[in-house]
Amino acid sequence: MTHDDSLAARFALAQTAARAAGAHALALFHDRASLTIETKHDALDMVSRADREAEDVIRAMVSEAFPEDGFLGEEGGAQPGTSGLTWVIDPIDGTVPFVSGLPHWCVAIGIQSEQATEVGVVYQPILDEMFTARRGAGAALNGVALRISPTTRLTNSLTGIGANHRAIPEHVAGVCCKLMAQGGMFYRNGSGALMLASVAAGRLGGYYEPHMHPWDCLAGLLLVREAGGQTLPMPDGASLAEGGEVLAAAPAVWPDLAAITGHS
Amino acid sequence: MTHDDSLAARFALAQTAARAAGAHALALFHDRASLTIETKHDALDMVSRADREAEDVIRAMVSEAFPEDGFLGEEGGAQPGTSGLTWVIDPIDGTVPFVSGLPHWCVAIGIQSEQATEVGVVYQPILDEMFTARRGAGAALNGVALRISPTTRLTNSLTGIGANHRAIPEHVAGVCCKLMAQGGMFYRNGSGALMLASVAAGRLGGYYEPHMHPWDCLAGLLLVREAGGQTLPMPDGASLAEGGEVLAAAPAVWPDLAAITGHS
Repeated sequence: MTHDDSLAARFALAQTAARAAGAHALALFHDRASLTIETKHDALDMVSRADREAEDVIRAMVSEAFPEDGFLGEEGGAQPGTSGLTWVIDPIDGTVPFVSGLPHWCVAIGIQSEQATEVGVVYQPILDEMFTARRGAGAALNGVALRISPTTRLTNSLTGIGANHRAIPEHVAGVCCKLMAQGGMFYRNGSGALMLASVAAGRLGGYYEPHMHPWDCLAGLLLVREAGGQTLPMPDGASLAEGGEVLAAAPAVWPDLAAITGHS
Repeated sequence: MTHDDSLAARFALAQTAARAAGAHALALFHDRASLTIETKHDALDMVSRADREAEDVIRAMVSEAFPEDGFLGEEGGAQPGTSGLTWVIDPIDGTVPFVSGLPHWCVAIGIQSEQATEVGVVYQPILDEMFTARRGAGAALNGVALRISPTTRLTNSLTGIGANHRAIPEHVAGVCCKLMAQGGMFYRNGSGALMLASVAAGRLGGYYEPHMHPWDCLAGLLLVREAGGQTLPMPDGASLAEGGEVLAAAPAVWPDLAAITGHS
């Protein structure tokens, strides 16, 4: 296979695997009340199980087709390969929404080469929405090309904000405050990967989070860039696993959101 | 008809009307790209049309069945009736998500007597979720009774925060900041009615918004109370249309969220 062919096959597999993992997680999601009662475990045990099982689905499919590829994920950690390609996986992004019964969770898969993120796939099982991107070849939602509108501004769109318990409350609240003071509005659904995909789909004007792991954001960042938006670079190479600050936005939102978050 | 019978008939009609209005709005939602192009109007004109048409669907059905009832809504204003019952309608709650292509919007219908909110219905078309409540008779989601868990706390759930451009940025951001500092986390999807319904369904631990109109919140507040949660009272009688501050929470979240928002 040429380099392009081999990426095309992996791009297809990423979608098949995301759909399979999503279907598995969705069955557990719909059954979560009885599962937590039946097993006498709490909701967090249940989501850990769903996370682990969905990751196993993906790893099994990838290992079968491309045994030479590496993995990087929250559950299994780093597992280097020999092909120069690494699957960066978040089997359930948005575990708090998942366990709460909210619909905002997704499967996120990025494929990283030594140079860049080559493939990004975000799949939301509940709405059966498959967001896909290949570096240099554009982004799509369920096969329909995505192109961020040049008229999307901070004041006529919502801005996604990510935070977790590692974030400094005053910093995150300060960003929300400045955003509102400038005529924007914050949005937070608990799944960073899905909010990044929403920027690519033109549903949000931008997204900011002080720190994200690569498995939470690589797929979404590629989606945004391939749909015509801007992003901050992620650390790559040996520093990839560390993750970093995430800013992604429609072109006409970028200057304002960069200023608000200290990147102008 | 007895008082109870007449409310039962209205409770049924509220669901039928919400479903019909939701189906109408959903067709426009899926077709919003071509509608805005076709009519050479912008997205806000399109959502105004969807809002108006969905409200017309509800008013026509109610006027036919209960011509003696009054109406209160964003579009048509107050239209007093003679039965002592007023339909308080938000045909599309979450117009920003609607116009952005996000799934978080709903139809909200409350029926207000001279004493209290008697009926609350929140319908989300995209997920076909019908949240219903009758005063003193409990709340349900798609017919399954809702009961907020006594174990839901500020630190193991998400707290919905509402805001709009009338809100003071420092106040809203201050609430988000205190929430995070105390181990909670904010959530905002742009539909206050849906976030209140999510509190009733145990998907959010609580909800706060500095000011809501009655058509945005009466149905959701009844849902929360009937599912076993607590709420601040809304102004009633002649002051009903003014709306007010909204706080709603699971019992074990209430003390913490009340303290954060200055209500303890």
